[in-house]
Amino acid sequence: MSTTYDDMDSYVDLLIVGAGPAGLMLAAWASQYDIHTRIIDEKSARVQTGQADGLHSRSLEIFDSFGLAETFLKGAFHVNEICSWNPDPKNPRHVIRTQRARTQPSNLSRYPQVSLNQGLTEQILLDYLASKGKVSVERNLTPETFHIDERLCDDDSAYPSVLTLRRLADNEWAKNIRPDSYQGAERETVRAKYVVGCDGAHSWLRQQLRIPLIGEHTNKHFGVMDIVPLTDFPDIRESCVIHSNCGSVMTIPREGRFVRLYVQLGETAEGETSDRAAITPKAILDRARPILEPYSLDFRICDWQSVYTIGQRVAPRFSHRDRIFLAGDAVHTHSPTMGQGMNVSMQDAYNLGWKIGSVLSGMSDRKILSSYDEERRPIANELIKLDTKMSNFYSEGPSEESQDYQTFRDTFSWFLSGVSVSYGPNMLVTSAKKGLASSNGHHANGDRRGSHGEHANGPKPYETNGSNGHRCSPVSDVALAREIRLGQRMPSEKIVCQSEANPMLLSDILPSNGKWRALVFAGDLTSADQRQVVQNLGEALEKVCHQYAHPRQGLHSTIEVITIHSRSRDDVVMLDLHNVYHPWDDTLGWDYWKVYCDDAGTAGTCGETYEKYGIDAESGCLVILRPDQHVSYIGALSDETAPARFFADVLVPRTR
Amino acid sequence: MSTTYDDMDSYVDLLIVGAGPAGLMLAAWASQYDIHTRIIDEKSARVQTGQADGLHSRSLEIFDSFGLAETFLKGAFHVNEICSWNPDPKNPRHVIRTQRARTQPSNLSRYPQVSLNQGLTEQILLDYLASKGKVSVERNLTPETFHIDERLCDDDSAYPSVLTLRRLADNEWAKNIRPDSYQGAERETVRAKYVVGCDGAHSWLRQQLRIPLIGEHTNKHFGVMDIVPLTDFPDIRESCVIHSNCGSVMTIPREGRFVRLYVQLGETAEGETSDRAAITPKAILDRARPILEPYSLDFRICDWQSVYTIGQRVAPRFSHRDRIFLAGDAVHTHSPTMGQGMNVSMQDAYNLGWKIGSVLSGMSDRKILSSYDEERRPIANELIKLDTKMSNFYSEGPSEESQDYQTFRDTFSWFLSGVSVSYGPNMLVTSAKKGLASSNGHHANGDRRGSHGEHANGPKPYETNGSNGHRCSPVSDVALAREIRLGQRMPSEKIVCQSEANPMLLSDILPSNGKWRALVFAGDLTSADQRQVVQNLGEALEKVCHQYAHPRQGLHSTIEVITIHSRSRDDVVMLDLHNVYHPWDDTLGWDYWKVYCDDAGTAGTCGETYEKYGIDAESGCLVILRPDQHVSYIGALSDETAPARFFADVLVPRTR
Repeated sequence: MSTTYDDMDSYVDLLIVGAGPAGLMLAAWASQYDIHTRIIDEKSARVQTGQADGLHSRSLEIFDSFGLAETFLKGAFHVNEICSWNPDPKNPRHVIRTQRARTQPSNLSRYPQVSLNQGLTEQILLDYLASKGKVSVERNLTPETFHIDERLCDDDSAYPSVLTLRRLADNEWAKNIRPDSYQGAERETVRAKYVVGCDGAHSWLRQQLRIPLIGEHTNKHFGVMDIVPLTDFPDIRESCVIHSNCGSVMTIPREGRFVRLYVQLGETAEGETSDRAAITPKAILDRARPILEPYSLDFRICDWQSVYTIGQRVAPRFSHRDRIFLAGDAVHTHSPTMGQGMNVSMQDAYNLGWKIGSVLSGMSDRKILSSYDEERRPIANELIKLDTKMSNFYSEGPSEESQDYQTFRDTFSWFLSGVSVSYGPNMLVTSAKKGLASSNGHHANGDRRGSHGEHANGPKPYETNGSNGHRCSPVSDVALAREIRLGQRMPSEKIVCQSEANPMLLSDILPSNGKWRALVFAGDLTSADQRQVVQNLGEALEKVCHQYAHPRQGLHSTIEVITIHSRSRDDVVMLDLHNVYHPWDDTLGWDYWKVYCDDAGTAGTCGETYEKYGIDAESGCLVILRPDQHVSYIGALSDETAPARFFADVLVPRTR
Repeated sequence: MSTTYDDMDSYVDLLIVGAGPAGLMLAAWASQYDIHTRIIDEKSARVQTGQADGLHSRSLEIFDSFGLAETFLKGAFHVNEICSWNPDPKNPRHVIRTQRARTQPSNLSRYPQVSLNQGLTEQILLDYLASKGKVSVERNLTPETFHIDERLCDDDSAYPSVLTLRRLADNEWAKNIRPDSYQGAERETVRAKYVVGCDGAHSWLRQQLRIPLIGEHTNKHFGVMDIVPLTDFPDIRESCVIHSNCGSVMTIPREGRFVRLYVQLGETAEGETSDRAAITPKAILDRARPILEPYSLDFRICDWQSVYTIGQRVAPRFSHRDRIFLAGDAVHTHSPTMGQGMNVSMQDAYNLGWKIGSVLSGMSDRKILSSYDEERRPIANELIKLDTKMSNFYSEGPSEESQDYQTFRDTFSWFLSGVSVSYGPNMLVTSAKKGLASSNGHHANGDRRGSHGEHANGPKPYETNGSNGHRCSPVSDVALAREIRLGQRMPSEKIVCQSEANPMLLSDILPSNGKWRALVFAGDLTSADQRQVVQNLGEALEKVCHQYAHPRQGLHSTIEVITIHSRSRDDVVMLDLHNVYHPWDDTLGWDYWKVYCDDAGTAGTCGETYEKYGIDAESGCLVILRPDQHVSYIGALSDETAPARFFADVLVPRTR
C-alpha cells in the first residue's frame, strides 16, 4: 500500500455511502435538520443513461413533500395505460392488442405512474440539495476500511463508526485500477455517529457487516435497451406487455422520444452464465422482431443497454445496533420489470431519514431507530414475493392473466403504487385495539366496517399470506376516521384556507420538514359544546407544543397544530379559536395558515372532505401524523390528554 | 459634454429600451427567434420591492405558454375572493363585511387572479431569458441621442434608427447626477432595425418621437404601502374593498405575509400638488385606522410605500413608421387600483414580440407590423374608460355598487382578466362575414346565436359604447365553432394524446415558439367520407407547410398541424392518417405528438371538448391560430384551399 501522506481525522453526524436515488433521498431529509451530513460516492458523476426508470405514485407524493413533484411530472412520461398484446387466434404468428388496461384506479393517488430515467431523477434531487445548501455529494471518494466500536453504540454523543475514505482519480472506479496503484492516493479518517449504506447490490458496507443477501438467481435473462424506435407498431408510445408464441417483450416509453424495451432472451443451462458481451442492441433487436410480428422495428439511436437475470434476494437484517443502516439495493434485489427498485429504495431512505435527523437533533430518543428494520424489511419481503409472481408471468408465455391484464394488474396496483404501504403497530404507530386510540368518541359503537367510501369501489388490495396482511387493509381500524388507516400515509383531500379562501390539498401543507402534525378535525364549530371541546384540547395542545419546542429549532415546536373544521368559512372566525390554533408573533402577527375548512365556498372546487375521510362532521377527531405523513394516532377530540401521552413516548421534552 | 473616448458603431436587429415587465416579455419572445436582440436599462438592478403586484388570468396563460405559470402560481397569493365592507347600519362608525364576492367566474380561465410583487415577476422572466441564453439585460445603460433616417424605413434590410447609448456609473440613474458630470462616460452608437420603448410613464423614446400622453390627472390621492399587518381585522388575508364613512381602503394580500393597502387620502385643491414627503407609512396608517374601525391595525415591517394620484392618459399613436414601437406605461397610464398596469403592459409586448420576430426572421412581411397599434391602442382606450369608472367607485364612498360588489365586479371581470381581449378583423384575423371564413360548412344555416354553452351562464360582458363593442362579444361569429371567437385567444379545453393516452389541455401544446397552428378538428374519422375530407385537406396542408419551411428554421415549417378528432382512441389508428398529420424523420421516426382526441378513454378525465368549443362532432372544422394563440380563421375542412389563401397574406413563401 502506498504511503498515506495526509491523514485527517474528521467527525460527522451522518455519513451516507452512495449517492444514488436512496442516498440522495436520505440527504434530502438530512437537509431539513441542523446536523452535519456527508454523502460520498466513488463515481465521478451521476448516472447518465439507462438504469431505473419507473416512478410510482407514492414516490411522486414523497417528491411533492419536498416541492419537487411538478418538476418530475413535467419531464416524465405518464404511464396511464398498459396495453396487453397476445397471439392473434386467427394467425398465432402475429400479435394483436387484446386490452388497454388503466395503470391504476384514479382514486389511488393524486399522482399517476410515470417513467423518467434515473439520471434525471438523480439530477432533480441534486438540484434540490443545492437549493437547500446543506449537503452536497463528494465524488471520487470511496470507503476503504470500516471499524465499529461496539462499546460506544449506546452512548448518544459517541461516534462509534470509523471509516477510512480514499480519494480516487477521476474515473478510477471505472478503470478497474487496483486501489493501491494510484500514487497520489489521499486518505482521510472519518468518525461518524451514524452511517447509512446506499451503495447498491454489491454493497461494500453490507459486506463489512457480514450481512448476506438471501435468495437465488434463475437462468432467465432479459435484454434491456433504450432506443428511439422506428416502427409501425401502433402502441409504441404506451407501456405494453406483449406475449407472443416466441417470447415476451415489455415496452415503457420514456421522456423525449425514447422507449425502453425488455426483451426475453433464452434461458441458460444450470450453472452456465449468459455471455453478456454477445448481447448487443442488435442482438436484442433480433430477438424482439419475431415477437412483434406483423409489425416492423428498427432504430438508429440507442443510448443504453443491459442484461438482467431474474432473481430475488433480500438481507435478513437492515441495520446494525441502530448505528449502521442499509437501504435500497444494498438489502434487496429483484427483477426490474415492475419498475419497483428505485421506488422501494427511495422509500427505505424516506422512512429512515427523518428518524436519524430527529435523533441527531435531540428531538427524539435513539430507540425510535429500531423501527426502520421493523417497518421496511417486511416491505422488501413482500416485494420479493410479488416479483417472483410477476416475473413468472412475463416469462411464461400467453396465459389467462395476459388475456385479462386489467384484472391481474388491479390485484397489484395498491402495492405497486406504494400508497398502501403500512407500518406498525409499534412505538410510532398506535394500535387501534390496545394503543392510545381510545374508542370513547361519539361513534365508538358505530359500524367499524361500514361504508368504505371511495375505496369500496376500488380494486381489492393485494393480499399477502403472511402475517403482514394488515399492510394493505383498505379498512380503517378506527371508527372515528373510517377511511384513514393507522400506519398508512395520510390520503390527501381538498381543503380551503379559512383566511385566504384558497382551495388546496391537505398534502400541500404537509411538507417534509421534520414536523410532527396534530391534525385537529374540529367538526362543527357553530356548536357551543364542540367549541368547548376544541378549546379544552387547545389548552392541552399548547402545553404539549411548548414542551417540545427546542432551542435548536429557534424554540419552534416539533409539533405543528393544523385545524380543519367542517363548516362554512363564513360561520367561523379564526381569532375566536384558542391561540394554539393560530400562533402569534410580535413582528409577524397571527399565523393565518393553520386553520382550514371543508367548504366549497365561493371557489366551488372543494367539499366533502370529512366524508372522504369517514370523519363525523359534528364531532370530528384528532389525527397525529409522523413527519413522513404516516398516521400515528386517531382519537376523539375529547381525549385531551392523548397528545401528551403519545408524544411522551416518541419525543424528548425540552426540560430534559 | 465630456469627450467620448470610445465611439463604437454596432448593429442590432431589435433594441429594447427598458427591462421592466413589458421589455422582459418582449425579450422572452425575441428568445424564440434567430435574431440579434439587445435590451438595455438605466437601472443597475431589477425592482426590489413594491410597484405593480396584480397578475390576471390572461397574463398567467401567457406565462404558461413560456412554461412559467407554475413558478408564478407557487409564489403568488391567489385572489379567489374580494370582500366588500361597508358601514354597519346599526353603528355607521364601524364597518361590517357585507359580501364575499368571487373574483371571477370559474369558467373564465384555467388560471385565477394572483398577486406577486413586480420584482419577483421580473426575476422569473430574467431567469427565463437566462435559461434560453439568447438575450440578457444590459444594465446601467441609457439612450442619450436618437435619430431616425425616414428614407430607410421601408427598406427591409436597413437599420434606420441610430441611438447613442451611455454607460452609467452604478446607481448613477438614481443619484441625479447630471449626465455629463461622470468623467469615465463610455458611449456607443447603435444602429437598429427595430426599436421598442418599454421605458415607462416618462418614456424618453416617446418624447424623442414627440408623441404626447393625452388625458388628465385628478386631485385624488391614494397612499399605498406593503406591510406585515398586526391586526384583528378578520379578512386581512383576503382582498377587500372597504368603504367607510370616512374614506376607502383597498387591501391585497401578497406573497409571504405582506399585505398591500391602498388608503384614500384627502383631495388637494386645484393646482396644488400633494406633499409626497409628508405621506409616510405612519401617515398612511393614521388615515387607515378610522376607516377600519372597530378593528385595530399596526405594523412593524413595511417594505415599500408610495403615493398615487388618480388620472388616466393614453398616447394617440403607439408606433412610428412601424420601425419604432412604444409599449406599456410609455403609452398608457392610469390608477393602480385594478391591478391592470403590469398586465396590459406585458400584453402589449406579447402582441408585438412575435410580429417583430417573424418579420426579422424573414417569415412574415413588414406589413403585419401595423396591426400592433391597430390592435393594442383600442385596448388601452377601453382600459382608460374603465379605470375612470372604477376609480370613481373607490373614491366616492359607500354606494349601491359597494353593497352588491359581486354584480358590479362581474360586469368587469371579462375585461379585467384579459381573456376577452379581441383583435381584428384585419390581415391577421379574418372577418366572419366577408373574410376567408366561408360559411359553406354543414352548419352554415344553423342558429348562430343559439346555445352559448358555458358562457351563457357566465356574467354579461363589459359593454363599451364605442365602436369596440365586438371586443368582448361572448358569441362566435362563426357557426362552425360557436364557442371559439375570431380574434380572441383560443380557449383551452381537455384533449387526450392519441399515442400516449395522456390527458392534457390544448394550451399545453401551444407554446409561444413562433409557430402558426392549423388546428384540424377532424371530426368523426370512422366515417369514410370524413376520412376522405381530412385526407384531401392533408394533401393541401402538406403543400402549404412545405411552402413556409425556411432554411433559417432548419426547414421546419412555420406552420404546425395539430389534429383533434372526436372519436375514441380505439377507433382511430394514427398511421392511417396522411403523413402531414404525424411527420416522419429518418432518425427519430414518426411524430407521435400531433394527433389528439376528445375521448374520456381509460383515464376518465376528459370529454366533451367538441361540445365546449361548439364544434360538430361529425364534420369538425379548421381553426388557424396566430403564434399568440389568437384565432385567425375558422372554416370548413372541405374548404381545402383556405389555408393556402390565408397564409399567402401573412407569411413569406420559401421561394421568394
